[in-house]
Amino acid sequence: MTEPIRVGLLGCGTVGTGVIRLLRENADEIRARLGEGIEITKVFVRDLDAVRDPVVDPGLLTSSFDAVLATRPNVIVEVMGGCDPARELILRALDAGCHVVTANKALLASHGAEIFKRADDTGHDVIFEAAVGGGIPIIRTIREGLAADRIASLRAIINGTSNFMLTGMAQRGMPYEAVLAEAQALGYAESDPTMDVGGIDAAQKLSILIAISFGVDVSFEAIRTEGIDELTPLDFAVAKQFGYAVKPLAIARAHSDGIEARVCPTLVPMAALLANVNGVFNAVMVDSHALGPVLFYGKGAGMMPTASAVVSDIIEVGRNIRGGTFGRLPHLAFHRELVSRPGQRDPDDSECPFFLRFTVKDLPGVIASITSILGTHNISIRRMVQEDSLPGSPVPVVVLTHSAREGSVRLALKAIDTLPFVAQKTCLIRVEDFA
Amino acid sequence: MTEPIRVGLLGCGTVGTGVIRLLRENADEIRARLGEGIEITKVFVRDLDAVRDPVVDPGLLTSSFDAVLATRPNVIVEVMGGCDPARELILRALDAGCHVVTANKALLASHGAEIFKRADDTGHDVIFEAAVGGGIPIIRTIREGLAADRIASLRAIINGTSNFMLTGMAQRGMPYEAVLAEAQALGYAESDPTMDVGGIDAAQKLSILIAISFGVDVSFEAIRTEGIDELTPLDFAVAKQFGYAVKPLAIARAHSDGIEARVCPTLVPMAALLANVNGVFNAVMVDSHALGPVLFYGKGAGMMPTASAVVSDIIEVGRNIRGGTFGRLPHLAFHRELVSRPGQRDPDDSECPFFLRFTVKDLPGVIASITSILGTHNISIRRMVQEDSLPGSPVPVVVLTHSAREGSVRLALKAIDTLPFVAQKTCLIRVEDFA
Repeated sequence: MTEPIRVGLLGCGTVGTGVIRLLRENADEIRARLGEGIEITKVFVRDLDAVRDPVVDPGLLTSSFDAVLATRPNVIVEVMGGCDPARELILRALDAGCHVVTANKALLASHGAEIFKRADDTGHDVIFEAAVGGGIPIIRTIREGLAADRIASLRAIINGTSNFMLTGMAQRGMPYEAVLAEAQALGYAESDPTMDVGGIDAAQKLSILIAISFGVDVSFEAIRTEGIDELTPLDFAVAKQFGYAVKPLAIARAHSDGIEARVCPTLVPMAALLANVNGVFNAVMVDSHALGPVLFYGKGAGMMPTASAVVSDIIEVGRNIRGGTFGRLPHLAFHRELVSRPGQRDPDDSECPFFLRFTVKDLPGVIASITSILGTHNISIRRMVQEDSLPGSPVPVVVLTHSAREGSVRLALKAIDTLPFVAQKTCLIRVEDFA
Repeated sequence: MTEPIRVGLLGCGTVGTGVIRLLRENADEIRARLGEGIEITKVFVRDLDAVRDPVVDPGLLTSSFDAVLATRPNVIVEVMGGCDPARELILRALDAGCHVVTANKALLASHGAEIFKRADDTGHDVIFEAAVGGGIPIIRTIREGLAADRIASLRAIINGTSNFMLTGMAQRGMPYEAVLAEAQALGYAESDPTMDVGGIDAAQKLSILIAISFGVDVSFEAIRTEGIDELTPLDFAVAKQFGYAVKPLAIARAHSDGIEARVCPTLVPMAALLANVNGVFNAVMVDSHALGPVLFYGKGAGMMPTASAVVSDIIEVGRNIRGGTFGRLPHLAFHRELVSRPGQRDPDDSECPFFLRFTVKDLPGVIASITSILGTHNISIRRMVQEDSLPGSPVPVVVLTHSAREGSVRLALKAIDTLPFVAQKTCLIRVEDFA
């Protein structure tokens, strides 16, 4: 038996505790796969008193990063979250001769370039399976399993909080506020839920998936991102009547003039597999030229699923150390100097059908005015539903369009929303028709 | 730019031609991912005149394996199928200093041990992503993505022919013979369909999945395997009435006393994702202790999907060559000397609910006799349906049982099938209730 792989763990919250637990519970299995054990040498935490889980040996805890490095770890595993001090500690770890495993999508989305460059300069691996899709091995699959193919598109449910909430709204007709309160009570949503319900978390993950799928950088801030907070029970009911589920999708698609990318609630045909991914589950559908559609489904969050992805990365580093190799493939899957492809495309150039919910006063000529403006912008109507309402109340009118250019739809809505009979900003939901 | 990876291709049928086509169509993308190109140096075929696809350069064809080796390939890619001469050529390739990529599940299921030993002795990688699940990267996922976890069970649709046929029987009420003829006309089934419809192909694949998931050998010949040829349209109709779809499942499950393994048509709850995997698509659901359920879905066969898996393996070998490493992980995922786990469990010890279709003469006391024998064997009934039939014709009676021991059910059926009023051997279908 050779030496165990020595791990310095940064952070001992939910995921960090899960990593310690998993390494203990699966120790025999991991040794049989890796050929040796994995040993945690020190656990860095900011507040020594905050860690109370009995699985954590208090003797391993330290609030000194130097004390972690002094144990000569092979790998630093960062599961603190946030950019500060994670960024600085990872850079110091690389300088000190450690490989790095991180679950931190926010850090990679903002500081990935700097971290990967330092890893190249110092000759180390940085791997990050848990950053996207929790326990689903989607990073590894795209970097290696699909390495032979040209990826055409990604369509993914990669924010479990939003999916849990939209599932509740769809299956139990709950309004947004009630389902948010439930998600918070269950620990699925933070007290400030903006990162999840606003789509920012998913946009950060999508920017990582775009990099490893297409070999180009699309900043998460540049991805058109829309939250789920404007959806109403009516939207789910009418969508269902049209044969659609409403899902929180992250979408990226390669075009000759660039990458189309967005994160927004989306209508998906009921029969599509993605429409049946419910609760906190995640799924990533990849369409590629030779292989066609593939779908990967599993738990996108939670202590043990995320820990399983983190530990699979530690095992990968361990296999590289035993194999005497590192940098077997580029951090972001492509040798960038060999990629010639445009970056992001203007989001207004995207085309898809739209589900538009107008809220209008019930007056003669209203529908005519709306449809006339849509027609002027080259938007043709596939279906329309006007729902009943109380006398005197504003009336919801839902229009399902044929495929239309997003820029045109936005211009049309800008014009419509200034009309005097429009009682409320029009709600726009994109439609993804799986061929 | 460094030297391209040199590939000697064995076989130029559907998959071989797909490999050549994919390497041409995706050459830029592959170079950007691998950092260098992949070059086919020679193509070994038994009959030079049989290859007519214009994508194949006739100058590359040879019927001499020595001529392939003379081009000093880094990798031999075997896509001939069958054991002879594939086995011998792979052993010679390893002796001659080549790594090996193969798509040949029949070969690995029968001669894997010999081939892997030779690879270890000569210091080479043998990888085989395309052997199971066609283009779905399931081998890589289990060997690496799930390496941190203890796998509890596999439930998989890994024979596209059977799934296409059962989908036709379910959706269009077709009888077995008609749907087989259709599958043959479409090229989804061979003229002798035994390997597919009899479950042998799936058992070979399952034995490979068992090895990499549990670290033990279960011979495909020892897996309890049942074909789909006894199913009738009535079974699909009654199953649907009970809330189930009928799917061709390969199942393996770890118990403390060994691995439960079988390949058979199985009732799956309609709402389960696996119930919605239709046509020639494959899917593998893996349940593991930390991660919970994950599902991988995609095309399990076909020229380009299979080629994409084969070429992803060539890229992996190329990355190992560039990284100066081989044998990063054991061929079958585990260091076997570190695994202590029993092998296969007695199939009669399996427990699940059963769907039993009796065919009986319509006489008084028949149901009482059957249910009494079931009761004697500790088999309790959950639901029962007796269908109408023409006067004088045998009557189908379907019983859905609670969970029962398979050995008991077989004993009970043995007793029942000798009763004078039983007109036909009882058809048994297992039920997989997803928790």
